[in-house]
Amino acid sequence: MNITEYMQQVGQRARAASRAMARSDSATRNRALLLIADAIVRDAALLRAANARDLDAAAAAGLAPAMLDRLQLSDKAIDTMVEGLRQIVSLADPIGEISNMKFRPSGIQVGQMRVPLGVIGIIYEARPNVTVDAAGLCIKSGNATILRGGSEAIHCNRALAAIVAEGLAGAGLPQDGVQIVDTTDRAAVGALITMPEYVDVIVPRGGKSLIARLMAEATVPMIKHLDGICHVYIDGKADLDKAVAIAFNAKCHRYGTCNTMETLLVARAIAPAVLPRLAAVYAEKAVELRADPEAFALLAGYPHLVAAVEEDWSTEYLAPVLALKLVDGMDAAIEHINTYSSKHTEAIVTEDYSDALRFLREVDSASVMVNASTRFADGFEYGLGAEIGISNDKLHARGPVGLDGLTSLKYVVFGHGEVRT
Amino acid sequence: MNITEYMQQVGQRARAASRAMARSDSATRNRALLLIADAIVRDAALLRAANARDLDAAAAAGLAPAMLDRLQLSDKAIDTMVEGLRQIVSLADPIGEISNMKFRPSGIQVGQMRVPLGVIGIIYEARPNVTVDAAGLCIKSGNATILRGGSEAIHCNRALAAIVAEGLAGAGLPQDGVQIVDTTDRAAVGALITMPEYVDVIVPRGGKSLIARLMAEATVPMIKHLDGICHVYIDGKADLDKAVAIAFNAKCHRYGTCNTMETLLVARAIAPAVLPRLAAVYAEKAVELRADPEAFALLAGYPHLVAAVEEDWSTEYLAPVLALKLVDGMDAAIEHINTYSSKHTEAIVTEDYSDALRFLREVDSASVMVNASTRFADGFEYGLGAEIGISNDKLHARGPVGLDGLTSLKYVVFGHGEVRT
Repeated sequence: MNITEYMQQVGQRARAASRAMARSDSATRNRALLLIADAIVRDAALLRAANARDLDAAAAAGLAPAMLDRLQLSDKAIDTMVEGLRQIVSLADPIGEISNMKFRPSGIQVGQMRVPLGVIGIIYEARPNVTVDAAGLCIKSGNATILRGGSEAIHCNRALAAIVAEGLAGAGLPQDGVQIVDTTDRAAVGALITMPEYVDVIVPRGGKSLIARLMAEATVPMIKHLDGICHVYIDGKADLDKAVAIAFNAKCHRYGTCNTMETLLVARAIAPAVLPRLAAVYAEKAVELRADPEAFALLAGYPHLVAAVEEDWSTEYLAPVLALKLVDGMDAAIEHINTYSSKHTEAIVTEDYSDALRFLREVDSASVMVNASTRFADGFEYGLGAEIGISNDKLHARGPVGLDGLTSLKYVVFGHGEVRT
Repeated sequence: MNITEYMQQVGQRARAASRAMARSDSATRNRALLLIADAIVRDAALLRAANARDLDAAAAAGLAPAMLDRLQLSDKAIDTMVEGLRQIVSLADPIGEISNMKFRPSGIQVGQMRVPLGVIGIIYEARPNVTVDAAGLCIKSGNATILRGGSEAIHCNRALAAIVAEGLAGAGLPQDGVQIVDTTDRAAVGALITMPEYVDVIVPRGGKSLIARLMAEATVPMIKHLDGICHVYIDGKADLDKAVAIAFNAKCHRYGTCNTMETLLVARAIAPAVLPRLAAVYAEKAVELRADPEAFALLAGYPHLVAAVEEDWSTEYLAPVLALKLVDGMDAAIEHINTYSSKHTEAIVTEDYSDALRFLREVDSASVMVNASTRFADGFEYGLGAEIGISNDKLHARGPVGLDGLTSLKYVVFGHGEVRT
């Protein structure tokens, strides 16, 4: 059997299973999640052993230390997976909610019902915890799932897949409700993203090169998580204490996250007052400031000062580095952001009512904030309970994607024998 | 300038214009729509003349009569366009609505704001009325638009584009807010669907072959309108009067629409009671019945009876032809529908509470109805006020697509200086 035939079979099984997943009730899906959590606890040693095989092979193959770190399934990572599943159980079931039922002049009553998307394909790196997180969210939302994790994690993913299948079966759900792609052949990805008859949506979780490849080749729609070139704009009417606290937190709370600020814009009028205070806090963390000429002049003496070049405005540093630019005011700030941002998350610091409203409305990003750190752009912080990623797309799901993002709305009509005249 | 460069320029202008369109207020966008409506009335003779040029060329090129009919801009079609624009003015502005603002434990308040998608590309056949309908919906929803109509309508579309540009400018909006692709080169479509940097979504309105081409080539996401293989299922617990009325209306109200029933499923137990009554009403319209063996036997003597073949279950007739099949009950009906339907619209006729709920939940189509004719699946009948098409997709917009389908939701955060700890 070649890889295309194999993937077609995986797809057919997923489509068949998706019907039983969709009509299952909340209690059944929650029971499957709890059985999976219990089995992970029971089989922790077995999972660690499978993970050790993956780690040995990856180390021998010369995988980078950061990748090895993500591949590792520590005791803490196992605890976190189990805790995550139990949290998903505690979330409300999104499926079946009927909203906006309204009578129409014809006599019919029309509304919308929230339903699973059907089959979700998830493509991710060699991170075994994602296997369980993604399976959990998809089971909860009544979807069938095809998981394609990085090939370095294949042994651990096989062990996890067996546990998930056992949990599904134990709850009376089809074992094919969650399938892993059980091959390390890269052609499997090409097949997965080009079978819209079996797969309703692809959720890629990975680096820019993966996303670029998928965008070029996929015929199945995607919910994409791209890079985060996030901005904070300190307005001329900003409260300086808030401005310093937010600009510090947005950059320095964590450097490697997609909602970390990468460019700071400061209104020219307030720059002489706020830049020295910012320099003082950034100096403690040795943050490198890549400043435009005006900011550079105002920051003379800062120990980690670099002249910004054009490329800095579109760079996601994921490091203690910050691009810094002075702007005339709102128009220039919004123009800069809408030009250079990756449309993930932007914040304004201001006490001015009209500036706050303009920023909220005119900045074209998934999350737009007033007087808060960009670090809040996160499914848990927003109250979604869990997230499968943060979408830079505008269609279907924008920003943090929780259970609702894995569902669709279909129209339902309650009639009484009405016909159209 | 080659076609790719031309389309890049169109895309750049659209992206630039989309910002002004998005920040414009309701009154300005409504004013543009009314100016366009008035100018269409004023220039009706000019539009008719441009249309006559298109019709002459198309007739000389041997265009099929049905295509010529769609190409024609009659006085009535002009009145309908104008009326349509004025109706769009009367709809509520979807843009800027903020919903679900909730305080989180961190102190931030999080909700969602409805915003335009940005730039919408619309690809359609040689139907000049679509140029105005589509432009109207996109202007109302604050989007910039690139319109690519069938090349046979180029003269009329140019005249309409001039009127739309005049209306936009008159209201203070950018003329590039609506652009037509001013070339009949087919390569323009290929460029339009592969520039995600300038185009946020493609709405194709056309036949199956167009959609198939776009699905294979597009890298811009699409909101697709596919075929309608719609089903009515007459349940064993159906009220026979409702069943006959609905099955007759769903097939015979109009034959050529996508929400017309193409396959009728009848519970075996009720077939002897209902089939003779159906035969009586279908006979009046000379509807050809393509029946499975059991239904065929029960309908002996019906003048337009044909034995169904496998292909009938997946055919959109768009004609007075109906596929007819007896089934054991709910399980078989749902299985048949989820296998053969194009996932557009399906209806059950039943007085049984549990069967009604199961059908609503388990049938995986954009519209699912109880005791109502499939012909109600329509943006106007659903109360959307207008529609740009009916989506067979599950992502973003499913079923009739009105103004909301041309928008997205971004997260907005009201903070008070919060930082993440």
